[in-house]
Amino acid sequence: MADKLIDSEITINLTSLNHQLEKPWTIVNEKLHKEFICGDFINAFSFMTRVAIYAEKANHHPEWSNIYKTVTIDLTTHESNGISHKDFDLATKIEKTSGC
Amino acid sequence: MADKLIDSEITINLTSLNHQLEKPWTIVNEKLHKEFICGDFINAFSFMTRVAIYAEKANHHPEWSNIYKTVTIDLTTHESNGISHKDFDLATKIEKTSGC
Amino acid sequence: MADKLIDSEITINLTSLNHQLEKPWTIVNEKLHKEFICGDFINAFSFMTRVAIYAEKANHHPEWSNIYKTVTIDLTTHESNGISHKDFDLATKIEKTSGC
Amino acid sequence: MADKLIDSEITINLTSLNHQLEKPWTIVNEKLHKEFICGDFINAFSFMTRVAIYAEKANHHPEWSNIYKTVTIDLTTHESNGISHKDFDLATKIEKTSGC
Repeated sequence: MADKLIDSEITINLTSLNHQLEKPWTIVNEKLHKEFICGDFINAFSFMTRVAIYAEKANHHPEWSNIYKTVTIDLTTHESNGISHKDFDLATKIEKTSGC
Repeated sequence: MADKLIDSEITINLTSLNHQLEKPWTIVNEKLHKEFICGDFINAFSFMTRVAIYAEKANHHPEWSNIYKTVTIDLTTHESNGISHKDFDLATKIEKTSGC
Repeated sequence: MADKLIDSEITINLTSLNHQLEKPWTIVNEKLHKEFICGDFINAFSFMTRVAIYAEKANHHPEWSNIYKTVTIDLTTHESNGISHKDFDLATKIEKTSGC
Repeated sequence: MADKLIDSEITINLTSLNHQLEKPWTIVNEKLHKEFICGDFINAFSFMTRVAIYAEKANHHPEWSNIYKTVTIDLTTHESNGISHKDFDLATKIEKTSGC
């Protein structure tokens, strides 16, 4: 099981994740959170397809929603009852895709 | 522009839509709402792919969210400021897919 | 029904389509043909998802194949028994996606 | 590396895979082969989405093509220079999806 990260670990990982990102991830309701604005619905759903494949491959899935060109992602690790390294790993992969 | 339906029209359309459905659509926050429980994440995302294609084809997109095998769909017509026949048309198409 | 284009029309449309493209579309076996090399399988399938949505929306579908990061697309209009403007329209949309 | 199966092993695995399948997989050009006829393009692409996720998760990808509602899948293991257990594993997963 992935350990729940303590606040100081979250801060370090968040700083590292957000380094060189135009738009940062934030912590909202104790989840790793970011809203992506894509060009249109097709690009938004294509982005979601990449994220879905990454997620299933890592066996770690997002809580996410979509309205037209906006994709909102919240990451938490249910079995750890908080944010774990799995969430930062998935966020890192999401950022490495060619965007949306 | 699709006209916003009045309450009595929504009731008639909802009865028709829900006819023979195991689990009904409901009206939540003035939106046409249903939660789909699929077998697993892969089936949930495959279901979302079908809905995404239908939606883009109809140029009418859902407000939706996904957590693992659950897909929650809310339909409203923004330019009509309420539920229109477009929402019932999309819900009907969603139900006609082979499910999730 | 979309008319089958004659050779001189195909040449004009092809020149226009390929203008400013790094890699051109060609005519192979009387079909509009191009091979796309994406970064990896996930990017290839994400690209295919965009093309699939465009295709269904236009009600005009590609003949295509995929091996890992390669997507090969052949466009023809069956009911016209050759290449029509529908094929050039779909190729144009494919090129306008953010690539693969 | 997955070992290339010898003919007698392929026969045994193929019999097991095809058991209770309405339409069998066959060996074509030394690849594990099957053509799936789905209801329409949307169902075909939705089926491909499930297969794509399975494939990436197993890090073993199909050679496949699609024309409208037909999806043709050929499985081989390039690094083994033939059919390996990876191909039978992927075929088994493909059959376990809710079909197309």
